[in-house]
Amino acid sequence: MHYITDPVVVRYSETDQMQFVHHSNYLKYFEMARLDWLSSLSISYAEMEKAGILMPVVSAALYFKKPLFFGDHFKVGVQLKKTPMATLEFDYQIVNQYNEEICTGSTVLAFLLSKTNRPTRCPKILLEKLPKIDI
Amino acid sequence: MHYITDPVVVRYSETDQMQFVHHSNYLKYFEMARLDWLSSLSISYAEMEKAGILMPVVSAALYFKKPLFFGDHFKVGVQLKKTPMATLEFDYQIVNQYNEEICTGSTVLAFLLSKTNRPTRCPKILLEKLPKIDI
Amino acid sequence: MHYITDPVVVRYSETDQMQFVHHSNYLKYFEMARLDWLSSLSISYAEMEKAGILMPVVSAALYFKKPLFFGDHFKVGVQLKKTPMATLEFDYQIVNQYNEEICTGSTVLAFLLSKTNRPTRCPKILLEKLPKIDI
Amino acid sequence: MHYITDPVVVRYSETDQMQFVHHSNYLKYFEMARLDWLSSLSISYAEMEKAGILMPVVSAALYFKKPLFFGDHFKVGVQLKKTPMATLEFDYQIVNQYNEEICTGSTVLAFLLSKTNRPTRCPKILLEKLPKIDI
Repeated sequence: MHYITDPVVVRYSETDQMQFVHHSNYLKYFEMARLDWLSSLSISYAEMEKAGILMPVVSAALYFKKPLFFGDHFKVGVQLKKTPMATLEFDYQIVNQYNEEICTGSTVLAFLLSKTNRPTRCPKILLEKLPKIDI
Repeated sequence: MHYITDPVVVRYSETDQMQFVHHSNYLKYFEMARLDWLSSLSISYAEMEKAGILMPVVSAALYFKKPLFFGDHFKVGVQLKKTPMATLEFDYQIVNQYNEEICTGSTVLAFLLSKTNRPTRCPKILLEKLPKIDI
Repeated sequence: MHYITDPVVVRYSETDQMQFVHHSNYLKYFEMARLDWLSSLSISYAEMEKAGILMPVVSAALYFKKPLFFGDHFKVGVQLKKTPMATLEFDYQIVNQYNEEICTGSTVLAFLLSKTNRPTRCPKILLEKLPKIDI
Repeated sequence: MHYITDPVVVRYSETDQMQFVHHSNYLKYFEMARLDWLSSLSISYAEMEKAGILMPVVSAALYFKKPLFFGDHFKVGVQLKKTPMATLEFDYQIVNQYNEEICTGSTVLAFLLSKTNRPTRCPKILLEKLPKIDI
């Protein structure tokens, strides 16, 4: 993994009556991890938005292996899949405090000019700071 | 009540492991009801935002009487407390399908110019369409 | 599609600062639609849970085509992919009020005995009420 | 304040289209802080639930002073208002990274026996570990 978050504690409000974390929260955990990572590379997503570039999620896949319970603490690993072009592709792995695999997944993000709502290429400032992916 | 919503079904994702609706959702239900009401008065909150006026919540109070369960359907009543000036004050009452009182509450909203982030008075278009409150 | 929900209005709280619905909400919309559908077939998921059978989501895929905005109203179509065995597989399609395709996706659900937390087969009562899928 | 959390980073998914944190999230932040605090006193809320005691919120009040933005990091202070009897009363204060007051509030929690759904007194184990409040 290119980046692993600090431990995050499961919030009570993230559980549902099945007694564990509602599956929709994993998309929020993935997002938190990739923005954390960008931030650790001195890439401010907030700044990018102000500069007129949005990065909406265009597709996502999730595989739920084991539940997360209230009070558990988990880490999210993020991996850039390939050098970004028109899209940015990430893989994720969530593990709990016992190092058990909880969830894996992937997302594809696009670059959008907020003024015109049109797709654009990966901005240079982002490209320069992201790790190079050899294939 | 000035307005009562159509029945709304409790979503599974709105429950927590206590087996009923998480209390934070009631603020979302209140919001849904007051925006529904404005919409029924031909006041588009989306249009107001585009015209540069935001209506953030500045305070809220909630009283939880009985739980709402997954599958329950509830209605939200909304009442304007007084003629809006610098703020807009609402009372709410949520009842379930058995007409049991689930939750009551109130919110105070301000008017904010989105460009300057400064408070402003209640816009005329809103004032004209809202019911008159006699005291 | 085997089932299409009534129109659902996008809630303000479902948007994020990108000005449209946060992508994690689509998993909640999918869930709402499949439980609606079960309910329309006189299958109470709440009753199944009380009888000790949970149906956690084990995988999900989502494809975001166009954004949903606050105030939009959308319908969710649900389709059972094949006769349920150890898992239950659904396809989804969300369209907005202009009949534009917003999001498609799929989920796989397992059957779990809540007492033992072990997988089980699709319960007969469910199997009998679900539509037969010819392949 | 009896307890102050570590800094928490605002998640992107917690914003709405008003460009700052949706007000319903503050109830989740309050909850996170009080459960953190209990945990720091070696009181496991998860254990209490397993022992059959639920602590639902029966009322809440919130005062929003300034917005929280994506990327901000905030701390939540929690204060027990008085020695718990039939209810547990907390005050809260949220401050951002500039030490600006963002939100204050309070919640009242009840003790409920999960088997009978009936109110009960504050359990001894909790009473012994909570700080004494002199009036």
